[in-house]
Amino acid sequence: RSDGTRLWGSLMEMAAIGPGVRGGNNRQALTDSDAQGRRLFARWCEGAGLAVSVDAMGTMFARREGTDPDAAPVLIGSHLDTQPTGGRFDGVLGVLGALEVVRTLNDLGIRTRHPVEVVNWTNEEGTRFAPAMVASAVYAGVMSLDEAYAATDAAGITLGAELERIGFKGSRPARVSAGPAPRAYFELHIEQGPILEAEGLDIGVVTHGQGTRWLQVTLTGREAHTGSTPMPRRLNAGLGMARVMELVDTVAWQHAPLAVGAVGHVDVYPNSRNIIAGRTVFTIDIRHPELAVLDAMDAAIREGTAAIAARMGLGVEIAQVNAFDPVAFDPALVGHVRVAAARLGYGHRDMVSGAGHDACWVAGVAPAAMIFCPCVDGLSHNEDETITPEWAKAGADVLLHAVLATAEV
Amino acid sequence: RSDGTRLWGSLMEMAAIGPGVRGGNNRQALTDSDAQGRRLFARWCEGAGLAVSVDAMGTMFARREGTDPDAAPVLIGSHLDTQPTGGRFDGVLGVLGALEVVRTLNDLGIRTRHPVEVVNWTNEEGTRFAPAMVASAVYAGVMSLDEAYAATDAAGITLGAELERIGFKGSRPARVSAGPAPRAYFELHIEQGPILEAEGLDIGVVTHGQGTRWLQVTLTGREAHTGSTPMPRRLNAGLGMARVMELVDTVAWQHAPLAVGAVGHVDVYPNSRNIIAGRTVFTIDIRHPELAVLDAMDAAIREGTAAIAARMGLGVEIAQVNAFDPVAFDPALVGHVRVAAARLGYGHRDMVSGAGHDACWVAGVAPAAMIFCPCVDGLSHNEDETITPEWAKAGADVLLHAVLATAEV
Ligand SMILES: NC(=O)NCCC(=O)O
Ligand SMILES: NC(=O)NCCC(=O)O
Repeated sequence: RSDGTRLWGSLMEMAAIGPGVRGGNNRQALTDSDAQGRRLFARWCEGAGLAVSVDAMGTMFARREGTDPDAAPVLIGSHLDTQPTGGRFDGVLGVLGALEVVRTLNDLGIRTRHPVEVVNWTNEEGTRFAPAMVASAVYAGVMSLDEAYAATDAAGITLGAELERIGFKGSRPARVSAGPAPRAYFELHIEQGPILEAEGLDIGVVTHGQGTRWLQVTLTGREAHTGSTPMPRRLNAGLGMARVMELVDTVAWQHAPLAVGAVGHVDVYPNSRNIIAGRTVFTIDIRHPELAVLDAMDAAIREGTAAIAARMGLGVEIAQVNAFDPVAFDPALVGHVRVAAARLGYGHRDMVSGAGHDACWVAGVAPAAMIFCPCVDGLSHNEDETITPEWAKAGADVLLHAVLATAEV
Repeated sequence: RSDGTRLWGSLMEMAAIGPGVRGGNNRQALTDSDAQGRRLFARWCEGAGLAVSVDAMGTMFARREGTDPDAAPVLIGSHLDTQPTGGRFDGVLGVLGALEVVRTLNDLGIRTRHPVEVVNWTNEEGTRFAPAMVASAVYAGVMSLDEAYAATDAAGITLGAELERIGFKGSRPARVSAGPAPRAYFELHIEQGPILEAEGLDIGVVTHGQGTRWLQVTLTGREAHTGSTPMPRRLNAGLGMARVMELVDTVAWQHAPLAVGAVGHVDVYPNSRNIIAGRTVFTIDIRHPELAVLDAMDAAIREGTAAIAARMGLGVEIAQVNAFDPVAFDPALVGHVRVAAARLGYGHRDMVSGAGHDACWVAGVAPAAMIFCPCVDGLSHNEDETITPEWAKAGADVLLHAVLATAEV
């Protein structure tokens, strides 16, 4: 079993870096705070006897050698970056829970045949640089390194430039195909939803990840005076946006209970009280576990948006920012997680991940699975996100046993 | 008659200061560009033999002495500040048209018994510092000087500090009640709507100004993950905003054809693609020429917004940013405008102003009237706003004759 007190202490120490404004974290990808968090993590890994390497995407791999150094490594980890108003556990639990697994193996003097590598993926959140999960996408070969480097933040700074600036553009190749394929990847993460807590369970055995589409819509109307422009002459891009927001909600409810949909990011031009908006640019996030339904939702939103724009005389452009198809995790690894939870006496159930995770990309190139633990009120992407030390420990325990089942003692 | 070529030349010279990005202007109140425009205007006034004074709100008065210096002055003017993406004529035509009237009086050697003062009101637009028409509000005694000075822009800089910085905090008292009441105030302005052009007319005889309410709504929901938060558990402040935007539109159409309503300014927090908006702050602009209807619209929007928030479980606050009641202009002065247009052979009609103007505040403390000239496609608060030299000249001609009718030759 893992040391829950040590794990909680590390979580709290990491949470002190890049504090938010209400007790959470603002440690966005490749900022100075992210760099500080990475350095602390590297020191901890070295203290646990691990060899830290960094790949060309800045992803950190901390290796505990196996008795057979040529055997394929078992990867365990998640991400240390956060949302701008993020919680202390989203991603961090998976990285520090993996570190706790290694520390426990050390304490117990357990040697595994397969090396174990603790991973911190770069820019999972995708807020500062879109899309999300960019480093695991490059790792899985679905995005080129150049494409990832070219992603810019709101200030126009590129991901590649920031990697260099904070000293985390490493020499290890970023593609999995450049090295030996991993034997397994396990990611421990908070659920970010309300199901486990509501059902009084400790562990979610994640069988699938739902599919996601991010669209960016630009509506073009005509800037005009709010007072002297008669209603019938308006080309109001703000009102058009409102109607698309309602449409996204309607389409999500039409595919209840599994579908979700929302508009989270909005830009209005020129954003003046007495000017009718001449242009709006906003993002749509829709998700569903079944590809066919997700595609139907995507089509309904594209058609509905075009119809709204046509009816209102607005110009419309719809760009796809990213697309994650639904993922089925590896049945054997999922089985290990389920058995571990049962053996340890933790209440558990199978579930689908609502959020995207690096494990979803890794699943395309290696056997992968995920372990969820509950979070209070299902809250995440919110500074108030919280979990109990007991939930964190349960997650680390299950992760430990899943590693033992695959890395061979 | 005025000199249309000279007037157009001055308009184009002023438009070169604080250029926009697409041929219009960005000469917002109390910026360096505004200061530059003010200095050019002062030089022109001095060149025309006028004595320039500046009041405590930065409003400029350029005086042509009357044969009876103790007689009440006739004021003519408008504003030189623009929207962030504004046109070259909104406000500017009224100030430079007034200057053209004085230049014409000089050319013709006409002395009037009453002094004539050309006025440039500070911060008419209200975008950088809310509310709009703040200097004429202080002039009319409906707002205190301290309240006006305390208005802040998006960077937190106060109007009072900017007045000092650009050197336009003058010594003349800002309240009309501190000096002799004006005999009349005439404001020439572009219509900012499509009616005159559509009817092929040169001059709008403005009988009324419609009433306006600016509300600011804050909706509070809960930041949560867009992927893993089930639809029924969402407190989506962005979707709430969309519904209020639709409501504002519906209420405006319910009172067609005279009512208008729109949401122009929007802030979404935290404005991240994969976070459900936890808070939105946005403004509502509604207008109608009749107070009773405006009040009914205001009440319907407040009730409807509260109902939307209650249904969605959102917190709601509604603040009134400003309120301009409908205004009736002085019938005698309006008559002078109508007679002047007819005598000069310009096609004209009576109309209601859709926009707020400094004349609306002045009308509360002195006889006031307005003259509209057409603008292409009714466009204003848009860099593409434009008028013809002939329309500008017609407006200046009517202003000249209205002055002659009140300042006594
Ligand atoms: N787990 C998580 O929040 N990932 C960010 C990408 C997403 O929006 O699902
Ligand atoms: N004329 C004008 O655009 N004034 C600004 C105040 C308003 O929005 O009516």
